[in-house]
Amino acid sequence: MTFRQKLQRAVTSSGSLLSVGLDPDPARIPAPLKKQFPETDQMIFEFCRRVVEATKPHTGIYKANMAFFEALGSKGWAVLEQLLEEIPAGKVVIADAKRGDIGTTAQKYKEAFFDHLGVDAVTLNPLMGIDTIEPFLDDETKGVFVLTVTSNRGSADFVQRRFQGRMSLGEYFAEELSKKNQSSKTEIGMVVGATQPEAAGPILQAFPDATLLIPGIGAQGGDLTLLREALKHHTGIPVVHSSRAIIYSGENNENWEEAVSSKAAELKQLLMPLTEKFIR
Amino acid sequence: MTFRQKLQRAVTSSGSLLSVGLDPDPARIPAPLKKQFPETDQMIFEFCRRVVEATKPHTGIYKANMAFFEALGSKGWAVLEQLLEEIPAGKVVIADAKRGDIGTTAQKYKEAFFDHLGVDAVTLNPLMGIDTIEPFLDDETKGVFVLTVTSNRGSADFVQRRFQGRMSLGEYFAEELSKKNQSSKTEIGMVVGATQPEAAGPILQAFPDATLLIPGIGAQGGDLTLLREALKHHTGIPVVHSSRAIIYSGENNENWEEAVSSKAAELKQLLMPLTEKFIR
Repeated sequence: MTFRQKLQRAVTSSGSLLSVGLDPDPARIPAPLKKQFPETDQMIFEFCRRVVEATKPHTGIYKANMAFFEALGSKGWAVLEQLLEEIPAGKVVIADAKRGDIGTTAQKYKEAFFDHLGVDAVTLNPLMGIDTIEPFLDDETKGVFVLTVTSNRGSADFVQRRFQGRMSLGEYFAEELSKKNQSSKTEIGMVVGATQPEAAGPILQAFPDATLLIPGIGAQGGDLTLLREALKHHTGIPVVHSSRAIIYSGENNENWEEAVSSKAAELKQLLMPLTEKFIR
Repeated sequence: MTFRQKLQRAVTSSGSLLSVGLDPDPARIPAPLKKQFPETDQMIFEFCRRVVEATKPHTGIYKANMAFFEALGSKGWAVLEQLLEEIPAGKVVIADAKRGDIGTTAQKYKEAFFDHLGVDAVTLNPLMGIDTIEPFLDDETKGVFVLTVTSNRGSADFVQRRFQGRMSLGEYFAEELSKKNQSSKTEIGMVVGATQPEAAGPILQAFPDATLLIPGIGAQGGDLTLLREALKHHTGIPVVHSSRAIIYSGENNENWEEAVSSKAAELKQLLMPLTEKFIR
């Protein structure tokens, strides 16, 4: 099964375009769990495991934010390895790693994410050149999501500036990625910030069938109406991501898992007008 | 002691600008070690430990390439954690991670490298904006090396293109980093590819006192004469890095450690005309 097929199946079977983030911050773990698991690595494992359990009816996709695991070093990586075994079959798992490097180093990152962790997709940073994604492109069961325009303010520093006669550096990336996707076995997708719809327009036009990873709804405040408008003519599946707005919605309550589940259900519902177009 | 002071001391006490790479590729580990250590993680630990032992008279700086450790997942990170304890005090350790992310994610990467691993410096990718490096800037004992122009062919795709009226996107990065360094506690340096001296010129001019990390000598074939010419007016310390040309120089010989030591000594010697200017 190709990555695109796997993603399509995950979206269709869950009826949801939502991706739920696994960004376990020890400082924000609900108090009842903290009490039960004094060891940080066990605590974040259990937190993530229960987030998966609580949200699985509402999502087909999980995105693990590598930084939150790496903050605990080897123990954090071990938590993620263990956690991946708990994610139900049929769900798509994205490692949000934003790696970008050359030659054998890129090859080793490919081994780390596709071969060792065995996730379905990884996010990549294209700054060092299109050749940096080459080592990831020989596996039709996998996907890469390459940064174009992001949802932070600083995105305006570089990727939203005019470049080579285009509206932005991001648009230039999109053109190059669209070309590259013609000959790639691995599905090439893009990370496109939802909170920057003006900037996203030309990028989506340059690669209209790209699979998308759209961060920035929920805690980052992306506007769903603008998002639907921006995606009116887009044919690639848009994965719409939220982390903090879902996973920390239960705060320190005893019944935090219910809050997490409700919030995921609410976002799934909010996305429904967009989702319907992509259920096949 | 500030990062700049620590680096100065490491360069002066070793009499060397050389940085030795820890990029352990299981496929290239010398046969005698492979036989002795059938477990991959033990084998790469022992390889790196002996590389450090063989090269320590010739270098004050080690750069660990994260990809090669991550290819083994949590076990690879554990090898690195253990290895850092074997690196002699007074040496500077750089984690080549090329991370670049926003907000709390960048904060977590800072925790991973500065607090958990405790390395002296980390390489960063600035594509998502200058705000992405902010979380790393509050520690005067640490350094960051931010990508500007790199040594791979694909560097021509983006960072060497004209941008905002400058010669290149890399030059624009350098200007922004130079400004940022005025108010930063953490030392902000740049990664500048030695095999691209034409492209490096305007970047060095834009930030003439930047601490530099220069990859691409040795296996990547950077030209030392051109490098010396490019650095004629530069006042920041240029760390000149080599990995494969040193650590795999012993191939499968029984006496591979001697070859590694000799190669490091040879590169140290080659760099001497440049080094002399920076011994204080």
